[in-house]
Amino acid sequence: MSNEALKLLDFWGSPFAARVRLALAEKGLSYESQEEDLFGGKSELLLKSNPIYEKVPVLLHDGKPVVESTNIVYYIDETWPQPQLLPACSYGRSRARFWADFIDKKVFNGGSNIWKSKGGEELETAKKEFIDILKKLEGAMGEHDYFGGDKMGFVDIILVSLSSWFPAYEKFGDFKIEEESPKIGAWIKRCYQKESVAKSLPDTQKVIELVSSIRQMHGIE
Amino acid sequence: MSNEALKLLDFWGSPFAARVRLALAEKGLSYESQEEDLFGGKSELLLKSNPIYEKVPVLLHDGKPVVESTNIVYYIDETWPQPQLLPACSYGRSRARFWADFIDKKVFNGGSNIWKSKGGEELETAKKEFIDILKKLEGAMGEHDYFGGDKMGFVDIILVSLSSWFPAYEKFGDFKIEEESPKIGAWIKRCYQKESVAKSLPDTQKVIELVSSIRQMHGIE
Repeated sequence: MSNEALKLLDFWGSPFAARVRLALAEKGLSYESQEEDLFGGKSELLLKSNPIYEKVPVLLHDGKPVVESTNIVYYIDETWPQPQLLPACSYGRSRARFWADFIDKKVFNGGSNIWKSKGGEELETAKKEFIDILKKLEGAMGEHDYFGGDKMGFVDIILVSLSSWFPAYEKFGDFKIEEESPKIGAWIKRCYQKESVAKSLPDTQKVIELVSSIRQMHGIE
Repeated sequence: MSNEALKLLDFWGSPFAARVRLALAEKGLSYESQEEDLFGGKSELLLKSNPIYEKVPVLLHDGKPVVESTNIVYYIDETWPQPQLLPACSYGRSRARFWADFIDKKVFNGGSNIWKSKGGEELETAKKEFIDILKKLEGAMGEHDYFGGDKMGFVDIILVSLSSWFPAYEKFGDFKIEEESPKIGAWIKRCYQKESVAKSLPDTQKVIELVSSIRQMHGIE
């Protein structure tokens, strides 16, 4: 695959960029990573490649930009089909798209409500809502080891990347996901046993420091 | 296609249900429509088929539910490929998914901000933001007749269904989309010349009456 020119506009701490790094790792694709300075100045290439949102990640494939992380993972799976991440049948794919969309709408924002909270009632509500989201996801996984069934698939990649921020939610929310949602806790550990996951996702301690800095910027602590 | 059991959990005024009706019409698929009473009581079948959101539309295919309108249109296109709505190449499909997602995030909510507004500064901001969204969509269409190029495709279906509510935004926002965004105005007229569009989308006068009722329920007028 070395003849494919792949460049990722990246940020180490972004759980959305991590999705793309993980999907590329699962496919065994090599790529150039360009680290963006999100708090200083974004590159001209980023602003030009994603003029609507001006956000990482952007995957440039032979110079053509693909944007929005879930969309990029979908593109990677369609362009390099092996090993397949999305289910083979159209009904299975519709379920995968549904849960990916649910995760996109709920999980990161739900977690942000926890670490942006100043405590008290506000924090309790945020935690309750976040745990409810995890319970719904447990229901979606059912009795399988992964959302993709017996192996990591599309929905697993979409969610596990966001889980790199979960220790920060636990720290600033003072709760344990493993206790509240044991099935999701066990699933995260299972995913992290894969080398592709461990090497693609940001260090959770550094994420806690990043979130702590952002909280300070927001005047929360 | 009469051997396929298709049932749509429907609501006449929903621009999201209209998406599915239009996609089914484009494919020449016959189906049973079950009208839901959204303001009275939703059917057990709807609550069971879409337990996460409890919303129309739901497409039941041989009894199996597919939910979320954009996801349903995607499913229809993958399951009955002719005539093809999504682009054939993976890059084209990534662009189509991107714009469909942009439309899903911005257009209906942007329009709602107009008719929910009580006037003054709030209304002017809502109109400005909505027109800015349309301008971005004009950019996406470029010099083509449709988002799908020279024929109506996936993104056209996703957007034109929402356009059935545009006359309500115009009435309650006191502006003309055709004047603010001539290219989108002309595109809407072009789409409505197709029988599939005209017969699948709700009557715009009835939508105005529906929005007027909802405004009264919200105590806006």
